[in-house]
Amino acid sequence: MKVSQTFIPTLREVPADAVIVSHRLMFRSGMIRKLANGLFAYLPLGLKSFRKVERIIREEMDAIGSLEIKPTVVVPGELWKESGRWETFGDGMLRVKNRLDNDFVVSPTAEEAFTSIVRDELNSYRQLPLSLYQINTKYRDEVRPRYGVMRGREFVMKDAYSFHTNDESLDEHYQAMGRAYRRIFKRCGLTVIPVKADSGAMGGSGSEEFMVESEVGDNTLLLCKSCEYAANVEKAACKPDFNPRPSVELARAAASSTPPLEKIDTPEVKTIEELCGFLKTNAKTFIKTLIYKAVNVELDLREAPGCSKLNRVKLAPEAPELYPEAFFAVAIRGDLDVNEVKLAAQLKASEVMLAADTDVVRLTGCPVGFAGPVGLASLPVIVDHTVTALSDAVTGALAKDLHYKHAAYGRDFEAWLIADVRTVKAGDRCPLCGGELYEKKGNELGHIFKLGYKYTKSMNVSYLDVDGKSAIPTMGCYGIGLDRTLASVIEEHHDDDGIIWPVTVAPYQVIIVPIKYDGAVKEFADRIAGDLEKSGLEVLLDDRDERPGVKFKDADLTGIPFRLVVGDKNLAGDNPKVEVKRRSEKENRLVEAGKVVEELSRLIQNEIAELNK
Amino acid sequence: MKVSQTFIPTLREVPADAVIVSHRLMFRSGMIRKLANGLFAYLPLGLKSFRKVERIIREEMDAIGSLEIKPTVVVPGELWKESGRWETFGDGMLRVKNRLDNDFVVSPTAEEAFTSIVRDELNSYRQLPLSLYQINTKYRDEVRPRYGVMRGREFVMKDAYSFHTNDESLDEHYQAMGRAYRRIFKRCGLTVIPVKADSGAMGGSGSEEFMVESEVGDNTLLLCKSCEYAANVEKAACKPDFNPRPSVELARAAASSTPPLEKIDTPEVKTIEELCGFLKTNAKTFIKTLIYKAVNVELDLREAPGCSKLNRVKLAPEAPELYPEAFFAVAIRGDLDVNEVKLAAQLKASEVMLAADTDVVRLTGCPVGFAGPVGLASLPVIVDHTVTALSDAVTGALAKDLHYKHAAYGRDFEAWLIADVRTVKAGDRCPLCGGELYEKKGNELGHIFKLGYKYTKSMNVSYLDVDGKSAIPTMGCYGIGLDRTLASVIEEHHDDDGIIWPVTVAPYQVIIVPIKYDGAVKEFADRIAGDLEKSGLEVLLDDRDERPGVKFKDADLTGIPFRLVVGDKNLAGDNPKVEVKRRSEKENRLVEAGKVVEELSRLIQNEIAELNK
Repeated sequence: MKVSQTFIPTLREVPADAVIVSHRLMFRSGMIRKLANGLFAYLPLGLKSFRKVERIIREEMDAIGSLEIKPTVVVPGELWKESGRWETFGDGMLRVKNRLDNDFVVSPTAEEAFTSIVRDELNSYRQLPLSLYQINTKYRDEVRPRYGVMRGREFVMKDAYSFHTNDESLDEHYQAMGRAYRRIFKRCGLTVIPVKADSGAMGGSGSEEFMVESEVGDNTLLLCKSCEYAANVEKAACKPDFNPRPSVELARAAASSTPPLEKIDTPEVKTIEELCGFLKTNAKTFIKTLIYKAVNVELDLREAPGCSKLNRVKLAPEAPELYPEAFFAVAIRGDLDVNEVKLAAQLKASEVMLAADTDVVRLTGCPVGFAGPVGLASLPVIVDHTVTALSDAVTGALAKDLHYKHAAYGRDFEAWLIADVRTVKAGDRCPLCGGELYEKKGNELGHIFKLGYKYTKSMNVSYLDVDGKSAIPTMGCYGIGLDRTLASVIEEHHDDDGIIWPVTVAPYQVIIVPIKYDGAVKEFADRIAGDLEKSGLEVLLDDRDERPGVKFKDADLTGIPFRLVVGDKNLAGDNPKVEVKRRSEKENRLVEAGKVVEELSRLIQNEIAELNK
Repeated sequence: MKVSQTFIPTLREVPADAVIVSHRLMFRSGMIRKLANGLFAYLPLGLKSFRKVERIIREEMDAIGSLEIKPTVVVPGELWKESGRWETFGDGMLRVKNRLDNDFVVSPTAEEAFTSIVRDELNSYRQLPLSLYQINTKYRDEVRPRYGVMRGREFVMKDAYSFHTNDESLDEHYQAMGRAYRRIFKRCGLTVIPVKADSGAMGGSGSEEFMVESEVGDNTLLLCKSCEYAANVEKAACKPDFNPRPSVELARAAASSTPPLEKIDTPEVKTIEELCGFLKTNAKTFIKTLIYKAVNVELDLREAPGCSKLNRVKLAPEAPELYPEAFFAVAIRGDLDVNEVKLAAQLKASEVMLAADTDVVRLTGCPVGFAGPVGLASLPVIVDHTVTALSDAVTGALAKDLHYKHAAYGRDFEAWLIADVRTVKAGDRCPLCGGELYEKKGNELGHIFKLGYKYTKSMNVSYLDVDGKSAIPTMGCYGIGLDRTLASVIEEHHDDDGIIWPVTVAPYQVIIVPIKYDGAVKEFADRIAGDLEKSGLEVLLDDRDERPGVKFKDADLTGIPFRLVVGDKNLAGDNPKVEVKRRSEKENRLVEAGKVVEELSRLIQNEIAELNK
């Protein structure tokens, strides 16, 4: 392909809103253009790389027996109402009414569509396992789309959904997906950090995220300096720095020598810091109590304290009850923070947030700052594990300017639920090996997840098992964001001058730069381009009437892995030569003109083989 | 691929709403499933054929130098407001508001998006011509989606847009597109009827539709029995069956011997038929006058009769004025019908419809049934060509129970606009050769169109021409519906038992049917499948534990071009054989097992070569 015959509008300047490297370079190299905030058009160069990522993903999906289908992008709202997510998905879902006033959704994900397709076709266990995928447009109505295609509103995702008769079958496919994902990222030249949700205390083995390091990542990762442990802060656990008390009895026993509960006056003392100063002790002996509001709670709260008055709605017959709103108290050791994602997971809530002051006052009967678990009967109290180890603690006494001393879990209060809801931080200890944890920011490129029966139950999917009885299949889902993957390749492979493509994802593998596209140079450049293409390579020939410096700058910017410079001087004489340079290296070398096709083919095949290994 | 490892849910029964063959067969063969009215999911078998159509289109676009890009499916409403189509596109466009209350459109077409991309990048004439295309999801909010993917709400279209410095360059690319479209359809095994808008009296050479015959087609085509003429009834012309009068002077001269205009009482006579009976003459000497309402008229009507009171809005500075609503009288020979599409085209209106009775009375000052062009000053009068030939006609006299006799165009009334607005019918004469025209129903698969300056003007696209002056590019657009194309292949290639795929679009080229997938038969079937795949063919192996009859029926239904039956009997002995049958033929023949790979490869290569020729 000649540069003059394609459309690669390279730029020297950088748009003001492009703060990350991949956004800047995709824009400057003419790969993408912005149509609106969070909406990008891929231009020819960008699309070529995009299609390569797509092909790699397709090959790896096909290789593990997942079958490609193509549902629509716009899907009936009806399906989302069946699954219950019409209410719970939130504003990120673009809802549309058509001219007949029917509800539709511009798919943000496709559990519903795939489950509905399988539901209609599934009869017998003999049809299972079944794994289906699509590579298709998705839309999420991000409030603040940014970082170019890394966090756009519209994007392309490969999403797969699998259906199984049992956990073993699901696990087998889940593992195959995990291996396929590793191969996909490796083939794209990406270093990913696989983050398992089950590494550590959380239990289960149902989820793995594939992260890449990024300064502006959405996710905070905790990694161990000594072992392979990697966790999303949303789920990270750590080695206990306390004596866990596995039962109320043990806790009570541990408090046997604790003096009785004692009320103390703490006038004008509200923060933990002030209290530490006042009592001359440290935060590790405090029980901090926070009141949270949780939205869309899918737990049975009928017996929970203070929940009789809650507004609750019933989902499908077999689904649990859904509480649009419920309040909880969370007691945690004074030096720690509550991790809201872990808390939401414990509550099966779509979201949790600190309760408004007015709600706190209403629910605790005291001003903000004096909540405590002792005597708190109006709310379900969630006790963090750390608190179970406290047998002589200070905590709020549910009255203005009053705290308790000598509060002991098990003796003075119990829990509605004991859970790990602490935020793990750099410096905490690895839950696997006890090594020191450190933090990294990361972006999620892929996620594999055992869904279980969530959708197959709510959407009434069933089949006849080997005994002719009706059974419900278990399900997995597996996603990769293509745009993000492509942008991440650039984040990992670039220098100050531009992109440095791995050959597998490069829009072209070779760029030919004639010093002046004229006479013998032109003739040679055309011929060598033809020969390289015949040997299966993808070649861009810079036939523009520009100074060599401009062409070199553009070649560096667009990042094509191999540059071939054709000039009069090197072509002259008995032994004509051309200059070959890898984009990733500083030095170039002269290769005999007659050997250049063979040489480049070999280099590129080797590099592809290395990445595909 | 083994049948047991893919997902091809074939069916014997037909869904009630599937009235056309392609819908029935795509459903029964497990190619598609319905998600909702007008929304279909392609299952693995359907998607394989879909991707082949996609690849053929991509190859042909690339071959003529059009460059693939990928804008978003959801685009900002802002762009549609710039072009003016936010108002004029109608309810077929799915409009969405996001959480920030911004307007978006789920693209029904992409002139705006492409024009906006090019606008931002275009500086110099050196960048032109530029042709860009996408193969992407589109959505049209059809009121009555039907016929399966033939007329769905969501569909995939290849749409290309080209930009040029002059008409010659546009025409060159337009012609190349026309040739590419012919190749695309030929390679898909489709017989298309190219319908040019310029064949006949309409003038211009700006549009060509590619139609396939279909009983349930959206379009009525008029074809000539004697020559190649083919036109959409929306634009069809015919050979005049009257003496055209090219000027008012000639018309006046022709009326020199006509008796003077005479009012006649026609009590209780309202229809043309009644009038014919009453006056003992025929409809060809009548002037029928109809009052039309036109919506979104893009004509300068400031000087038109009766238009001073019209509500008009101004578009962009350089765009013409847009009238949200305007009324017109249309005079046409009594035996003919007005073609509303031709009329709308003449008026540059988005739609025209017969005016309501109340409007007719208000505008003509007389009851419905007595309108006529003589003395009609309150409306612009559009005179069909046929009326220019009438120098002694009967027409309404703008008063209850009164008509005129001896009305003559040129003498008694003139036209605001003379135009061809008649509906051409079967039996009319070909405008090219005078042969008899006949009708066919057709579906449009593709359309190529010279847009001119419509979008580049309204959206302010400009470049510096060779003299450094600012100029506006001219534009073409070119679309093909992929879903329709695929469905049309089935419409053309099927029999009572199922689909008969052309090899180029077949999901697999060979199906191997082992009589019983066991022992030597299994071994041979596996080996031959492997050998065929190694030689580059796409093979489906029916490894199910089903009766041969069931497998044969499914093979016929799914329409795979070559069937290979492997059975014990033929395999036995010194000279093992397998049965080879083309889907399109009744007879099978025995081929030596050792030669079957070579034989099938040859047959398939020949067939592909024939279609690609």
